[in-house]
Amino acid sequence: MNQDQLFEQIKKKRSFLCVGLDTDMKKIPGHLSGKADPVFIFNKEIIDATAPYTVACKPNLAFYESNGWEGWQSLEKTVNYVRTAYPDIFLIADAKRGDIGNTSQLYARAFFEKLGFDAVTTAPYMGEDSVKPFLTYPDKWIILLALTSNRGAADFQFIRDEKDGELLFEKVLRISQDWGTPENMMYVVGATQAEKLKEVRQIVPDHFLLVPGVGAQGGSLKEVARYGMNRRCGLLVNSSRGIIYASSGKDFASHAGSAARQIRDEMDQLLDDHGIGK
Amino acid sequence: MNQDQLFEQIKKKRSFLCVGLDTDMKKIPGHLSGKADPVFIFNKEIIDATAPYTVACKPNLAFYESNGWEGWQSLEKTVNYVRTAYPDIFLIADAKRGDIGNTSQLYARAFFEKLGFDAVTTAPYMGEDSVKPFLTYPDKWIILLALTSNRGAADFQFIRDEKDGELLFEKVLRISQDWGTPENMMYVVGATQAEKLKEVRQIVPDHFLLVPGVGAQGGSLKEVARYGMNRRCGLLVNSSRGIIYASSGKDFASHAGSAARQIRDEMDQLLDDHGIGK
Repeated sequence: MNQDQLFEQIKKKRSFLCVGLDTDMKKIPGHLSGKADPVFIFNKEIIDATAPYTVACKPNLAFYESNGWEGWQSLEKTVNYVRTAYPDIFLIADAKRGDIGNTSQLYARAFFEKLGFDAVTTAPYMGEDSVKPFLTYPDKWIILLALTSNRGAADFQFIRDEKDGELLFEKVLRISQDWGTPENMMYVVGATQAEKLKEVRQIVPDHFLLVPGVGAQGGSLKEVARYGMNRRCGLLVNSSRGIIYASSGKDFASHAGSAARQIRDEMDQLLDDHGIGK
Repeated sequence: MNQDQLFEQIKKKRSFLCVGLDTDMKKIPGHLSGKADPVFIFNKEIIDATAPYTVACKPNLAFYESNGWEGWQSLEKTVNYVRTAYPDIFLIADAKRGDIGNTSQLYARAFFEKLGFDAVTTAPYMGEDSVKPFLTYPDKWIILLALTSNRGAADFQFIRDEKDGELLFEKVLRISQDWGTPENMMYVVGATQAEKLKEVRQIVPDHFLLVPGVGAQGGSLKEVARYGMNRRCGLLVNSSRGIIYASSGKDFASHAGSAARQIRDEMDQLLDDHGIGK
């Protein structure tokens, strides 16, 4: 999916919501536990219920890998289901991968060829050649960690370079622009750092940002839109636990749908406020 | 496995070699391609041939994930085989994982509980809470990326902090010592940066270092030992392609064994030179 197509979806659905499929076998409703592949059944129902209100969907690999190869099978079934039933949904592998060049190539093969993801989250620590192999696929994306939503973000991401006064996350944003374009790169910027989005936008005005941390982690959607939205929206705001675990009963899917619709309604208003029409 | 046990193995086998199972379906000998799970068959033969000369074994996850869930199945079979046939081999998941705390917990569950690895490589960018969940398992390890062997290492790892003059990789080494101990943390330091091992050893004198980059990537084993070895060896030197693809014929395993034995013989001498006896 390219940027035009993503922006079209945002305008059409009046949403820039990404549903995080952090599906933990230990947290899904009890009535599913006897069935074959409960993780996939859970995901399928969540996707059906939330698809009208979301433009993106983001399984986090950790949750699948904790079930071993069966978990990867649930993941592949989930991806195939989305690709078939909702081809307009932007599919993100939240994998935070990155390795030396010839190895990152294999990760790209895994997520873009073997599975049909549109995007993979990647870690910047190993630099250019760890990221570049992902950028050779047309209409595929990397989403590079810049400023994360967790407490540990403070450990290294705010180190200031004595040479040019740049913070590490700013350097990641600036230098990585030589590796790709706003057509194949996005950045992760946590909602818990909403006020920092202003600085982020000065460095990357045109790139899409994937923003986790709204909801359970405490970030505010309004603040994120205020500082982070650009003329093509430029935001994918993720919510995981607040949607997928909205209820632990048999009605979990309809509650998830309601939670997603509620966020969509707020997003509709925010898009309006920023002059992004239907 | 704890540090004592690892050091015992090193003294017993006169080796600090780690065999990297970067098993690429597209590179394994042709005669295996018709069989069921050729990746596992290849790994099993490599392991049998190299086990006498190696103390550690390191599948890189990218290679398995490029085959989807079947790849994860090959990985699990490989891990189970090593655990059963060679319980004294230190098993490293080269996965370079790292996520917010509650998600890293799931990665820890994947690699330490679901699979039986001794150690996982982790990325430092997201800081303390992305790493700590791995450190709650007794006799399990993380191996944190510090100074990597690839060209892209130069992009961010050498940024100098204006506050204290520390380089980023030095800061990773120093700060992370508050997170764990030499009994549950190692560091990745590339052999292509051998001269830097001297500085690394000033910051982390007692930790084990996992050193990739000898062989195909150009690093020198002698230089690595010269600057990096400590009184308990403190090194695991990885070789992947130079061993596992030593021959592409039916005799690939015996060639891999010879390549490993040759490195072991050199290591035996280096251990002697550093006063580490049998």
